Amino acid sequence: MGKPGGGGRRARQNAAVTTAGAAPPGLPAESTRARVERAALDLFTLRGFERVTSDEVADAAGISRRTFFRYFATKADAVWGDFAGHVARLEALLAGSDPAQPVMASVCAAYVEVNSYPESQLHLLRERMQLILTEPALLAHSQLRFAEVDRAVARYVAARTGGTAQELLPRLVAASTRAAATTAFEAWLADERSSLVAQLRLALDELARGFPALDD
Amino acid sequence: MGKPGGGGRRARQNAAVTTAGAAPPGLPAESTRARVERAALDLFTLRGFERVTSDEVADAAGISRRTFFRYFATKADAVWGDFAGHVARLEALLAGSDPAQPVMASVCAAYVEVNSYPESQLHLLRERMQLILTEPALLAHSQLRFAEVDRAVARYVAARTGGTAQELLPRLVAASTRAAATTAFEAWLADERSSLVAQLRLALDELARGFPALDD
Repeated sequence: MGKPGGGGRRARQNAAVTTAGAAPPGLPAESTRARVERAALDLFTLRGFERVTSDEVADAAGISRRTFFRYFATKADAVWGDFAGHVARLEALLAGSDPAQPVMASVCAAYVEVNSYPESQLHLLRERMQLILTEPALLAHSQLRFAEVDRAVARYVAARTGGTAQELLPRLVAASTRAAATTAFEAWLADERSSLVAQLRLALDELARGFPALDD
Repeated sequence: MGKPGGGGRRARQNAAVTTAGAAPPGLPAESTRARVERAALDLFTLRGFERVTSDEVADAAGISRRTFFRYFATKADAVWGDFAGHVARLEALLAGSDPAQPVMASVCAAYVEVNSYPESQLHLLRERMQLILTEPALLAHSQLRFAEVDRAVARYVAARTGGTAQELLPRLVAASTRAAATTAFEAWLADERSSLVAQLRLALDELARGFPALDD
């Protein structure tokens, strides 16, 4: 996916009056892609995913409809942002993990690490995950995207255990760690004051250890 | 949901020439509802869910369009059959489980029990689950239906642990046991000779015990 400079003068002129707005003083200017993502997430959150058109997102970000579709194939893809990059980072973390570390410990650590965002990104992440996990129109799309994560985790587990990624155990680890991560995201969304990383650690640790909290 | 006698003479006349067909000799006659389900699953499997209309299912089952919609609110609901009954049976099994048994053992046993089908029903179950787990047009609907199972399991775990069903632990148990069950169903679908109950036991046992097979 290319990153054309797009937007240009029109974007700068519109910046002050759009939802996406300009970067706060003292911070570096956003890339066009980041500005489109922010405009999309803000508008979808404010007015509902189905009620906002791609044209309106393009307008708010100060780019043309054509430029919008150079960044995102569909309106739903704008919600997900650079998800292929997210999956690639997860795969790199797994590939780089200590082969002496237990498999579940490596998968859980990679999940936590890839979802450790700087404070400044948490507001947008909250909007993004709220849409992904609760917007009915995104449910089918979300399942297909999350399956990319599952395949990456299953491939890693298969490589560690010497089987294939289609077998029960690699798929079970992939499906259940994603279920734990999704539960952690839901808990974080439900409680503004909670820490995402703390919820992820808690859920994944319970899972990896066979739910010790149930015995308390 | 009512179970009208519907179909009647027309159904009996058509039975021999429809996809649904008549009950094999020596077996009791199917209920109209069961005949509609069978016609729907057979047709969807044969020609693809999106290419078959509700009218065609009604025709194959020898009932009117109107009668079809008395049994199933949408075409997708015909794939799921009596899923409300399935969830109710799971809830009854959980409610009746021994309170001295560990929580995970009770949840896993209930999951296995509710998915223990007589041999004669496995062919239709295979068609049903193949559609539910792989048909893109059903993905969103499936998420909403599976959420009913999750809520039932979370409520049971919350009752056992003294919390609420919205907390992390009950939701984690619900989400991860469902992930394990789904993985077991996928493994069963991928291998015609495997036993569904054996796959379910294997996946749920690995989950409950913290993935001991990873240490082998």
